[in-house]
Amino acid sequence: MKQFTKYAIKNSLKRIFLYRSCLIRLKLMGVEKIFSYTLANETGVTPDQVRKDFSEFGIKGNKRGGYEIDDLLNKMETIFHRNKDNNIVLVGMGNLGTALSRYSRFVQRNMNIVATFDIDPFKQKIRSEIPVYSMARLKEIIERFRVKVAILAVPEISAQEVTDELIQSGVTGIVNFAPVLLKVPAGVVINNVNLCDELESVIYCVHKLMKANGIKNIELLYRDMKY
Amino acid sequence: MKQFTKYAIKNSLKRIFLYRSCLIRLKLMGVEKIFSYTLANETGVTPDQVRKDFSEFGIKGNKRGGYEIDDLLNKMETIFHRNKDNNIVLVGMGNLGTALSRYSRFVQRNMNIVATFDIDPFKQKIRSEIPVYSMARLKEIIERFRVKVAILAVPEISAQEVTDELIQSGVTGIVNFAPVLLKVPAGVVINNVNLCDELESVIYCVHKLMKANGIKNIELLYRDMKY
Repeated sequence: MKQFTKYAIKNSLKRIFLYRSCLIRLKLMGVEKIFSYTLANETGVTPDQVRKDFSEFGIKGNKRGGYEIDDLLNKMETIFHRNKDNNIVLVGMGNLGTALSRYSRFVQRNMNIVATFDIDPFKQKIRSEIPVYSMARLKEIIERFRVKVAILAVPEISAQEVTDELIQSGVTGIVNFAPVLLKVPAGVVINNVNLCDELESVIYCVHKLMKANGIKNIELLYRDMKY
Repeated sequence: MKQFTKYAIKNSLKRIFLYRSCLIRLKLMGVEKIFSYTLANETGVTPDQVRKDFSEFGIKGNKRGGYEIDDLLNKMETIFHRNKDNNIVLVGMGNLGTALSRYSRFVQRNMNIVATFDIDPFKQKIRSEIPVYSMARLKEIIERFRVKVAILAVPEISAQEVTDELIQSGVTGIVNFAPVLLKVPAGVVINNVNLCDELESVIYCVHKLMKANGIKNIELLYRDMKY
């Protein structure tokens, strides 16, 4: 019950998503073909890294002729099981959970939140597109919809308990928004999304950058910047 | 106007946040002292990596005697400017933006959202703890509160335009929730948080894990797991 990060999301996977965002943008701009060094340049990694990542995910290309953007995007679709429907449950219908349950992009990418859960009986009565169930029905619903992945948006204090219940019901992957490290058995994938850390990282880098430039006043920094 | 990732959040910084989460958990459990190899074991990195990361962030320890957890946490506080107030603005008061504006943990960690912005006049009239302004007042408010960091929760289509406005108003760091790669000048820190990618990563790993185990049925996977 110890290995937090054994199945943590790898950096190569994160880069693949970065490449995809970049490819989608280039496609919208009318670009049809791309070389690994162009993609590398656009995403800030080395061309070798791009080729290595592509190779890890079984994406083959012609080094001389470059890659067809449409072809790359199609291959990525296949890799990420887009064509399969993915049933997901969400636990914790607070502000963040509610916003996530309404996040239309999940559906656009074939990730369907089929049910949400909350301990608050009032929330269970709210009429919404996606039903809000009591925690007592967690196992039943997860089994019925063959759910493997859950979004966890409960308070810190109940995160571990709910995680245990999810795993016992058959969930093997969790996107965890609670700011705690969860203990899970081997074979369970945890992706921690800590919103405070994301914001704090930016604050840290901004301060560091100002210090590196010997600038205490942000307006001054801008005089030196070229647009 | 090209370098997306030059000031992207480094992995070492992400690991420091991971160590901190782990240290907080250990502290709550009553642990007072820790060795780098214990912290490494708990977080799934190598002891060398822990020491290297600590050294990068100027955290000194006694290899033999280990680290005092309280001392480590205090040092991290200082590094991350916790003691300073950090004024932040949020643009885009849709479901996600509204949830983020109410996220109490930001305040607990001295990150204050002082103002939010939306193009919808109706939203500007809603009475809430944090005022919702029209975009026309962006520059004025950012300058008044000396804001350097913004949270971007606008739709994809307006993300770049709003980013340009934020930067022109003096913002140098952005946590971007819109699923697009933003073009920013050198000296601006961007942290992309793509919620679809976070969820899709987990789905991908779950499928891969099932395949690696030669298991098509998730219930079967669980028979082999030890709790």
